[in-house]
Amino acid sequence: MTDTAVIGQRVPRLDALDKVTGRAKYTSDLKLSGMLYGTFLRSPHAHAIIKRIDTSKAEAVPGVKAVLTQAKLAGKVAKLVDEAHGTTMDFLAFADTKVKYQGEKIAAVAAISRDIAEEAVRLIEVEYEVLPALVDSRDAVRSDAPIIHEGEKPVKAANGETLRNVLRSTDRVEGDVAEGFAQSDRIFEDTYIVPRAHQSYIEPQVAVAEVDPSGKVTCWTSTQSIFGVRNNLSRCLDIPPHKINVIGMTIGGGFGAKFGGVVDVYAVLLAQLTGHPVKIVYTREEEFLDARPAPGLVMTIKTGVRKDGKILARQAFALWDVGVQGSGSWATPRVKGVYDIPNIDVHGYDIATNKPPTGAYRAPGGPQASFASEAQLNKIANALGIDPVDFRLLNMREGREVDFKQTIRKVAEKVDWWNREKGPNEGWGVAIGEWTNGNGPSSAVCTLQEDGSVKVFSGLMDITGTDTAMAQIAAEVVGVSVDRVAVTRGDTNSAPIAVASGGSQVTFSMGNAVRRAAVEIRERVVEIAADLLEARPDDLDLRDNKVSVKGAPDRAVTLGDVAKAASKSKGGPISGKGSFANEPSATTIAALIVKAEVDPITGKVTLRRIVQSLDCGKAINPMAVEGQMEGGAVQGVAWGLWEQMAYAPDGRMLNPGFLDYHLPTAADLPAIETVLVEIPTDNGPFGAKGVGEPPITPGIAALQLAIADAVGIDLHQAPFTPERVRAALREKANGN
Amino acid sequence: MTDTAVIGQRVPRLDALDKVTGRAKYTSDLKLSGMLYGTFLRSPHAHAIIKRIDTSKAEAVPGVKAVLTQAKLAGKVAKLVDEAHGTTMDFLAFADTKVKYQGEKIAAVAAISRDIAEEAVRLIEVEYEVLPALVDSRDAVRSDAPIIHEGEKPVKAANGETLRNVLRSTDRVEGDVAEGFAQSDRIFEDTYIVPRAHQSYIEPQVAVAEVDPSGKVTCWTSTQSIFGVRNNLSRCLDIPPHKINVIGMTIGGGFGAKFGGVVDVYAVLLAQLTGHPVKIVYTREEEFLDARPAPGLVMTIKTGVRKDGKILARQAFALWDVGVQGSGSWATPRVKGVYDIPNIDVHGYDIATNKPPTGAYRAPGGPQASFASEAQLNKIANALGIDPVDFRLLNMREGREVDFKQTIRKVAEKVDWWNREKGPNEGWGVAIGEWTNGNGPSSAVCTLQEDGSVKVFSGLMDITGTDTAMAQIAAEVVGVSVDRVAVTRGDTNSAPIAVASGGSQVTFSMGNAVRRAAVEIRERVVEIAADLLEARPDDLDLRDNKVSVKGAPDRAVTLGDVAKAASKSKGGPISGKGSFANEPSATTIAALIVKAEVDPITGKVTLRRIVQSLDCGKAINPMAVEGQMEGGAVQGVAWGLWEQMAYAPDGRMLNPGFLDYHLPTAADLPAIETVLVEIPTDNGPFGAKGVGEPPITPGIAALQLAIADAVGIDLHQAPFTPERVRAALREKANGN
Repeated sequence: MTDTAVIGQRVPRLDALDKVTGRAKYTSDLKLSGMLYGTFLRSPHAHAIIKRIDTSKAEAVPGVKAVLTQAKLAGKVAKLVDEAHGTTMDFLAFADTKVKYQGEKIAAVAAISRDIAEEAVRLIEVEYEVLPALVDSRDAVRSDAPIIHEGEKPVKAANGETLRNVLRSTDRVEGDVAEGFAQSDRIFEDTYIVPRAHQSYIEPQVAVAEVDPSGKVTCWTSTQSIFGVRNNLSRCLDIPPHKINVIGMTIGGGFGAKFGGVVDVYAVLLAQLTGHPVKIVYTREEEFLDARPAPGLVMTIKTGVRKDGKILARQAFALWDVGVQGSGSWATPRVKGVYDIPNIDVHGYDIATNKPPTGAYRAPGGPQASFASEAQLNKIANALGIDPVDFRLLNMREGREVDFKQTIRKVAEKVDWWNREKGPNEGWGVAIGEWTNGNGPSSAVCTLQEDGSVKVFSGLMDITGTDTAMAQIAAEVVGVSVDRVAVTRGDTNSAPIAVASGGSQVTFSMGNAVRRAAVEIRERVVEIAADLLEARPDDLDLRDNKVSVKGAPDRAVTLGDVAKAASKSKGGPISGKGSFANEPSATTIAALIVKAEVDPITGKVTLRRIVQSLDCGKAINPMAVEGQMEGGAVQGVAWGLWEQMAYAPDGRMLNPGFLDYHLPTAADLPAIETVLVEIPTDNGPFGAKGVGEPPITPGIAALQLAIADAVGIDLHQAPFTPERVRAALREKANGN
Repeated sequence: MTDTAVIGQRVPRLDALDKVTGRAKYTSDLKLSGMLYGTFLRSPHAHAIIKRIDTSKAEAVPGVKAVLTQAKLAGKVAKLVDEAHGTTMDFLAFADTKVKYQGEKIAAVAAISRDIAEEAVRLIEVEYEVLPALVDSRDAVRSDAPIIHEGEKPVKAANGETLRNVLRSTDRVEGDVAEGFAQSDRIFEDTYIVPRAHQSYIEPQVAVAEVDPSGKVTCWTSTQSIFGVRNNLSRCLDIPPHKINVIGMTIGGGFGAKFGGVVDVYAVLLAQLTGHPVKIVYTREEEFLDARPAPGLVMTIKTGVRKDGKILARQAFALWDVGVQGSGSWATPRVKGVYDIPNIDVHGYDIATNKPPTGAYRAPGGPQASFASEAQLNKIANALGIDPVDFRLLNMREGREVDFKQTIRKVAEKVDWWNREKGPNEGWGVAIGEWTNGNGPSSAVCTLQEDGSVKVFSGLMDITGTDTAMAQIAAEVVGVSVDRVAVTRGDTNSAPIAVASGGSQVTFSMGNAVRRAAVEIRERVVEIAADLLEARPDDLDLRDNKVSVKGAPDRAVTLGDVAKAASKSKGGPISGKGSFANEPSATTIAALIVKAEVDPITGKVTLRRIVQSLDCGKAINPMAVEGQMEGGAVQGVAWGLWEQMAYAPDGRMLNPGFLDYHLPTAADLPAIETVLVEIPTDNGPFGAKGVGEPPITPGIAALQLAIADAVGIDLHQAPFTPERVRAALREKANGN
């Protein structure tokens, strides 16, 4: 596809104007007649027995319409089932006899105003017996650790230890790792630590729910998947999916955390109870106390290499701090990644702690596992005296429809890596991260209208500009200009099924569905235009909003004329539908180079350059791909420098707000430089791959190397705060 | 299709619960942030020159955001183009130099409240020079009549006269009518008169419009066709259709009058001018003064018959009182109807009068033309001593896929017509009316969901229960129960094109589109289920929400299982689309028998029985078909007994409200009896025909005969009010 008219163009996002003018409608903008406001009573303790709950004073507050506790749900289904990214969580809607994390929901109140609801929450009396809390996954696995979930059974781990509080494990064994280590010239063993990080979307979790007299549910929410929310509500509340309509409003950021279950279920429960619509909007503090942040990781990784640099064996033992529920362990095998390593022995464990449940965050588990994997590779390259880029080129395998080596080479060339220069206390770092596109089921419908414009309709949520990509795909296939394509989304009642907007799958999966729907349109256009123009179908050219005879551009009809003719034909108006699922998906790789300066006095790290390359297949809209790369790169380095959810020993969070949880702003960052590497994939629409996830993965490790290169310290725990940098510098000065 | 599971079942309307519980959302329920209210200044005179308009006092009222007149529209497109039912109207948005009917819009005001807007309207000063008004079409055609529209040219009519104020004409000539009359034994000539009637939908005309900073228009309205409204706005305001989104809200009655142009254009103009959303809701008085009622008719009809009853020739000369714009003349040829008449000479003229424009009203022109045609046939039968049912059977032609004779025979059998009995002052009447289904373009999308439910999506507006019919069609084809089908409508941005909900075309056209979309689903279901069940596709049975092997009902998979398998297959999720247009459509016939009692003292007519038969093809939902028959029959007899828009000689309406415009209630009527005659049509879905229009057509004529049969008077002018009945009885007593 070298000769594309719209694919590959830099097209401004279709939703840009509505967003910058404040016209985009968010869930919290909704005001329904008779609407109530819902709030929660939350546990102040991370681990405690509930001895008594008394809601009578709260219920007596004028304006309070319902106070809901687990006891009042008796007989109703009230278990949450959260299936984002294949992990099933299963827990009660409210704590009843025991709380397991600070912020856990104990009761919900619906009242005619938010103030009244909050007043009622304050009047609920709860008597607790506080228990010791498990905060660190390394403590939680000890044989003498308290048990968080009843019925838990100790697990015999691969390293021979017996682990407590294990929720799930992932193992990957290839070859013979002992033999691999035996053949190695050098063996490295390190432990790397990444704390939890919050997705920090600007718009908090929010839902409005309404239940009609027949029990049909309507739920407006901010989500990455209206079908995911619907199916989740169906399972939690035992209502058939077709009796639930989920309407996706504009979404103010998701990054993996907006798949439902956090507020929507409660809004529906309160609406069922009161007969009124109910709105719930999280505060920022609630976001930090009880949403679905990324799990933390403690990984011990052991790698054997020959002195020529060839990696022979890798072993990893990972404890994922998932809180009361969640999973990260499935990402542990990423320590093999794109490298050709003959012997692998990897074991990851999801460990329950007295912290809130965790969920997906852009490339789930990727930034954490990549830090351990890539930081150690940098350390090994340095120890062997091999350039870290060359070291990777040496060990990378060949990909199918992806070019790992070219991608890292291109980013290195961009900064003239092999001739790089640095000033005092400056250093360079490099790392890579790969990801594979999701390929879930999608359907789309396209219509050619009588004014020659095209409509694209689906149930897809746009969080990253994918509507614009869909418009470009339809425009390219049908031969219209992109300003004549309108992309709209239905609700779960009206739209055919759409993939979740996550897992780097939207462009790949829905893009194919839209392409197929547009091809159906194109085929009928050609058939009708051939008739109108008295030409052979093969001789027709669809371009610039018209169909013309090749070599005779004056013999042409507009697409509007064709649509009008169709509406009078027996075949009827021109519309097409396309479906897609489960075809082999693409692998992508991002490579990141950062240059940083370390202040040896304060320990403050300042970023000087951030340069990222990405194999994006074909870039449908380069501007959108660059946007994804810029956002991902920033989040990656932010995990490295600033972001962490900090907990006191009793399990209470120390920084539940943006004053103390440091999110970078533009002032903290240099301009991000990007390099697109376009290796098309056969199954992608026009060769495109999903690009959402890979850019976040290499951030921590690249930064770690830059700091090491700058001031000669080998940090193992993110984020690399001034305190930790200073401590390492002191340690180095002390000769340790 | 004798073996249908869902087609032919009496299924309650899907929207019933929402409507009876008050949950259905109408346009006037909308409240948008910053919304203004729009109202109009209207002419108090039916015909006048505007010498001066001064809006300065109105503009100075605090809270008034805009005062719009034709002068202020200079440079903007501001002509209304109304294409309901193929008639193009073309007039200015506001009167500028001349008003042509009482109630014509002179200015529009947008203000922060309705009260303020009305106050501002009162402060607009207009100076008029009143002109004589043309109220009766017979006066308007006279050579000395004032001219209503500049540039009008006199027309030489078929009868040799020169007619003024003719807007349009329709002629139909077959055979040699002079020869036909020459061969006739008897010739009858009569003039019949029907006044204007208003559709009297309960929900008045209403629209809310919003215009975004880029000029994109969103319009919420009560309409029978969101695409019609969109295209009309596009033409009036010179905005490309794809920059206009029309959202159809629940519609509280339409009957042909809700195709846009009455309020929506003005709401958009005011929204453009002010930058705010604007709502306009008509009052009932405005409905009567300036909407789109049915035109009046004065028809002279001449019929020649042999003494054995065979009709040999028919001639008609019709003046349709359309007001300033509109058309009825195209319905004039209905005087031939279903009869085998060799010689026809029919001429209809649309005559401009100083009354509001007219539009479509259920079977446009049908009730009026049928009155003249059928009343005269009853008179002829009586004069020849032939039973009026027998007289029709004698002259009816054979239809294609329709049975005219069986339909009238069935209704006659229902009342035991040939042995009918009557008490003192009671009489029986009969008449028929036929109609042909529209066959406009439609597309629909169906989706099979993973819970085994089916979604039907289109841009169709449901005014008569057609959503329920669509659900039944999809359910039948796919083999699900009807409670598992959800029917949703999109807006013009999201939905593929749909026919207008008028012209008795919805079930025929959209029904076919839905059927085709469902067939696409069925085909993929069979393919996948054959695989899952290891059976031949031909051996499979789709029924009761599952697919089973014929003869082995235990070998079955649910439709949900099939959908789940599809979502993992390369073909992707199961959805289907269907399009339809322009295939030969069906003819239907309704036959009506009424029994009435006339009080010879007061002249009051009381209905004793109303019995109607209808050839509906296959009744998808007999309850819905009966509902259409009951509603149509009531409107038909109401035109005969009560309804009329009455005008003073100066053109002012005398009864612009429901206190004086008599709509019947249940207290005025006996229970309506219905007889379904099911003659399937090849092209209809499951043989179905559209049924909306025929039931209204025979009402006036059947009633006229019943009164004639009761008290021996031959009324020629509807409605048959007590005053007219008494006058005729007096005349009869006087021997005239």
